[in-house]
Amino acid sequence: MAGNIAGRIALTLQYDGTAFSGYQIQNRDRTVQGELERALEILFREKIRVTASGRTDTGVHALGQVVHFDVKSKLPLERIAIGLNGILPKDVSVVNVCNVKDDFHARFSVISRHYLFKLYNFPFRSPFMMYRALWVPEKIDSHFIREVLAHLEGEHDFRSFCKAISADNGTVRRILATSVEEEEDTLAVRIKGTAFLHNMIRIIIGTILEMNRKGQKPDIIMDILQRRNRDSAGPTAPPYGLYLEKVEYPEHLVVDCVKGIPLFTP
Amino acid sequence: MAGNIAGRIALTLQYDGTAFSGYQIQNRDRTVQGELERALEILFREKIRVTASGRTDTGVHALGQVVHFDVKSKLPLERIAIGLNGILPKDVSVVNVCNVKDDFHARFSVISRHYLFKLYNFPFRSPFMMYRALWVPEKIDSHFIREVLAHLEGEHDFRSFCKAISADNGTVRRILATSVEEEEDTLAVRIKGTAFLHNMIRIIIGTILEMNRKGQKPDIIMDILQRRNRDSAGPTAPPYGLYLEKVEYPEHLVVDCVKGIPLFTP
Repeated sequence: MAGNIAGRIALTLQYDGTAFSGYQIQNRDRTVQGELERALEILFREKIRVTASGRTDTGVHALGQVVHFDVKSKLPLERIAIGLNGILPKDVSVVNVCNVKDDFHARFSVISRHYLFKLYNFPFRSPFMMYRALWVPEKIDSHFIREVLAHLEGEHDFRSFCKAISADNGTVRRILATSVEEEEDTLAVRIKGTAFLHNMIRIIIGTILEMNRKGQKPDIIMDILQRRNRDSAGPTAPPYGLYLEKVEYPEHLVVDCVKGIPLFTP
Repeated sequence: MAGNIAGRIALTLQYDGTAFSGYQIQNRDRTVQGELERALEILFREKIRVTASGRTDTGVHALGQVVHFDVKSKLPLERIAIGLNGILPKDVSVVNVCNVKDDFHARFSVISRHYLFKLYNFPFRSPFMMYRALWVPEKIDSHFIREVLAHLEGEHDFRSFCKAISADNGTVRRILATSVEEEEDTLAVRIKGTAFLHNMIRIIIGTILEMNRKGQKPDIIMDILQRRNRDSAGPTAPPYGLYLEKVEYPEHLVVDCVKGIPLFTP
């Protein structure tokens, strides 16, 4: 840490991923990171680089993405929140600002990542779910999804559910919890884990929907898992049903926050 | 009824009002009625004029707008639904199609109209509520809204809550029921009536929010009502929080429907 740094700040962000070329900054395309760093530079009058809990792909949404950055100039947390929301475009917003310890790291301090996949299960499409949920006209039984997901809980080699394998981190991951909630015509599928492979959740959802269409039994998912081969799983579900809902950190790394979505479960 | 007419059809429509210049057809602007009549002409290969339960203003949404029309060529109801949803743009959809009696009239047969106004009550704005709810950062008590609305139930002269007075129908209307539901950070305010004056619901909501900001008591609404003067009420709330949720008709006028949102409460 440089001596002239006032402190480390963590932000919780929401964004509608529809009009972004994903989270991560790129030269030409509109990205969440790009918009955020532009807003931070206007607010703090210094170039600021942010580090996120992880990237999200083009079209994927966030209800609780977390990023951290270091600043030289100190501003009250409330002013950072209001200032950034005034500068940021309407499809991104800051919903929490925290002072965090110097060893808080948005990516490496994560305890768990919570993803939500929304399915709109109604015979006719909805204008309000466009780009916000995956429309599935044929009836899906929420118990079926629940049973399939139960097989995936715990530590497994998820190679079958990975787009591209990176050599450094392997393909073993741990799913901590899963749930399916029915609300009118929407199914909210939640998967909580420590870390995920690239496209892992979208491939899991695509596979479950294919299994449902084919009338397969829930335990078929174990065969797919054991084959450790992307081709044995179903198609990748589209990005617009997926939301990074929440990222959890150890309580002791968070100093204080404006009110909003907390960074830890109290 | 002309002898060459195959029958009268009623459609239930959903639309996101954001990109429409209201429901009613106009020469140049994009309207819901314009898009629907264009789609009907493609599907039935004849010019069809539709009649709605009522207009909705620019920016106002619908979860259950109802229109009727007469057609010469007969098509199965399911094919009408699928066909129209294939032709219509993504921000309008057909969620029900019914064969109705010849004396069914989308406007004149209405038993009740159900409106929903969504308030997003959270200190920071949400990208997902943009154009879908009115953002109110300061805390509103749902009991307060409930109490104000209770005073408005029944038959009253709503002249104070009317944009422009039309000579023909007067300003006396009947509110049948009101409710407020809290769901996380969203308040769903529902007002059910037989008919409403122009901007009536948006002025009621704007007035309640102003009363809340000023710390006024709920029964102040009675004074405003009794003054019969638009200037005594608060500002008109923006259109994008308002949804025409449902329109109810007498069961005996409906012959049969594809599954979807029913036109009557069974």
